[in-house]
Amino acid sequence: MNITTNNITINKSEASKINQIDFDNLVFGNVFTDHMFECDYIDGAWVNPTIRPYGNLSISPAAKVFHYGQAVFEGMKAFKDSNGDTFLFRPKENFNRINSSSKRMAIPEFPEDIFFEGLTTLLKLDKDWIKPGIGNSLYIRPFVIATQVGVSASPANQYKFMIILSPAQAYYTGDVKVVIAEQYSRSADGGVGYAKAAGNYGAQFYPTNLAKEKGFQQVIWTDANEHKYLEEAGTMNVFFRIKDSLFTAPTSDRILDGVTRKSVIALAKKAGIPVEVRPILVSEIVDAANSGDLKEIFGAGTAAVISPVSAFSYKEKTYTLPEMTKETKYATKFKKDLMEIQYNIAEDSFGWRYPVN
Amino acid sequence: MNITTNNITINKSEASKINQIDFDNLVFGNVFTDHMFECDYIDGAWVNPTIRPYGNLSISPAAKVFHYGQAVFEGMKAFKDSNGDTFLFRPKENFNRINSSSKRMAIPEFPEDIFFEGLTTLLKLDKDWIKPGIGNSLYIRPFVIATQVGVSASPANQYKFMIILSPAQAYYTGDVKVVIAEQYSRSADGGVGYAKAAGNYGAQFYPTNLAKEKGFQQVIWTDANEHKYLEEAGTMNVFFRIKDSLFTAPTSDRILDGVTRKSVIALAKKAGIPVEVRPILVSEIVDAANSGDLKEIFGAGTAAVISPVSAFSYKEKTYTLPEMTKETKYATKFKKDLMEIQYNIAEDSFGWRYPVN
Repeated sequence: MNITTNNITINKSEASKINQIDFDNLVFGNVFTDHMFECDYIDGAWVNPTIRPYGNLSISPAAKVFHYGQAVFEGMKAFKDSNGDTFLFRPKENFNRINSSSKRMAIPEFPEDIFFEGLTTLLKLDKDWIKPGIGNSLYIRPFVIATQVGVSASPANQYKFMIILSPAQAYYTGDVKVVIAEQYSRSADGGVGYAKAAGNYGAQFYPTNLAKEKGFQQVIWTDANEHKYLEEAGTMNVFFRIKDSLFTAPTSDRILDGVTRKSVIALAKKAGIPVEVRPILVSEIVDAANSGDLKEIFGAGTAAVISPVSAFSYKEKTYTLPEMTKETKYATKFKKDLMEIQYNIAEDSFGWRYPVN
Repeated sequence: MNITTNNITINKSEASKINQIDFDNLVFGNVFTDHMFECDYIDGAWVNPTIRPYGNLSISPAAKVFHYGQAVFEGMKAFKDSNGDTFLFRPKENFNRINSSSKRMAIPEFPEDIFFEGLTTLLKLDKDWIKPGIGNSLYIRPFVIATQVGVSASPANQYKFMIILSPAQAYYTGDVKVVIAEQYSRSADGGVGYAKAAGNYGAQFYPTNLAKEKGFQQVIWTDANEHKYLEEAGTMNVFFRIKDSLFTAPTSDRILDGVTRKSVIALAKKAGIPVEVRPILVSEIVDAANSGDLKEIFGAGTAAVISPVSAFSYKEKTYTLPEMTKETKYATKFKKDLMEIQYNIAEDSFGWRYPVN
């Protein structure tokens, strides 16, 4: 392994803990690699980019992140092909989005060169944690938190940017049953729903718990004004297949501009599948379910790639999606297409793969 | 000083840092006392209530508070009268509200007995930090954060409840100029706007910065659907005086149920001032400003108590509130009424004072 960096201080861990990890029984997001990347914002500049052994932070209880939620994050993955080479998937999209999220949360933007140098240096250092084999990956969590001390509600002047890494297996949750939101909301027009802001996620836990009590795993959010339009599932964008056409909501200031979402749209167009990106009425989906025209619903996001939905609930009625063979499901096709690009199996005509050399 | 507690472990600081503090030049929320209270939620129970020297936390970078914003807080104050006795103001309201906030953020509720025993024990230990004199106070910040490790978006199973204390002087910001929101929003119907959830605050910083660039200090938020109705100012509820009547928006799932707000309503009713708690159109306030009937706008919140607004901006036009003598301003009256109760000067006919014995 050859690591050269002029800008990043590297403090290597004394011993790897990799041999203590049971890679066949990983719980998503619970195990972390030997190292982490951090960089501090002090006096108006991002300084001291450092890789050091993964471990606790020493942070003031008055740090603004705890009180005012100035915190944004990204989710990415690294993949290893059969030659042992490592690839990222469209990482520039994640870089751009964390800065878009930061801007909305009054957090200073992070420099592109330090982002990529920090990320690739960290991945090279911990490359043994990326296991080959379809479905295995290294989940990458860049995030920014406000570290300035102060319990007055104003933007911080000190922040910490970090990247932590967590090995992940194929993320099979089974088919997902969802509730269409009728009372609770995820985001407002003019709000922060489009940002990967920490508070957007915690705010969904309570209504999601209510759905879980009824036997459903996730909520598909609707517009807060009238609960008439379908938006996103909180950790995934959502696609609907009516007959052979694909429908998904347009991005907006309420809806996350998902990387998997935009990749699915591109793959569908390439395959000649009609795609309509437009506001989708709940009533359209209910009508299509009743007529039998609704063939599939699936979520698209980094963690699970594609999550087929087997049923949805709306106004106390449950609608079950038709059984389809794996071969005829769009969900199967897009998952396969995406993973073959991610694992360097298929040609990458879009230029989405990013080799970590 | 006599501290007796059967339930709380107390680790006293070796030396007080109080003599290093310039109490005549305090910046709000930047200096903290010698001790802090903490209590952990582990295996389904709040355990190990402890008071220890104020200092940094050692916390995992993968703690859910950093990633999913499961964090709520309260703001309270302790006051000292001329006899050196300490009082809180309606602390049960804050206790109830932190649990209401927690519930919405899928955080376990905190027990009332530990809340009050922890708070009063901490206040007795650090009572020299509460300076007598009208305007001086000790700002109290209870808060809860999700400490469980894991970068998967689901509620944590470990939390930390804390109380930190910050001495405060009279909080005089000068008259405040505000912008009425026309594009950005604070909260959605069915969202978490009524909770003191950390993310609600960070989400306001960017639009507030835009207002500051135009010479205004705060934003009065309007409904996200149409921006037609006036809601709250983000860190304060808002009152409007038209002729001699007082108007304020009803609480809802978008608007914080402020303790100062409900105290002002009670004081107004007691004084025979007509109060209407109902949705208030922006257009009503603009019309009243144009006709000269709009006499006052003021914010009500724990930190500043009452903040008079001197001007507001709406659709690029600035409306200046009329000059009034201090004696005829409702803002002056309510601030005086509240502080005389808080500092044990006036009779407390409402039973709002809570002695810390």
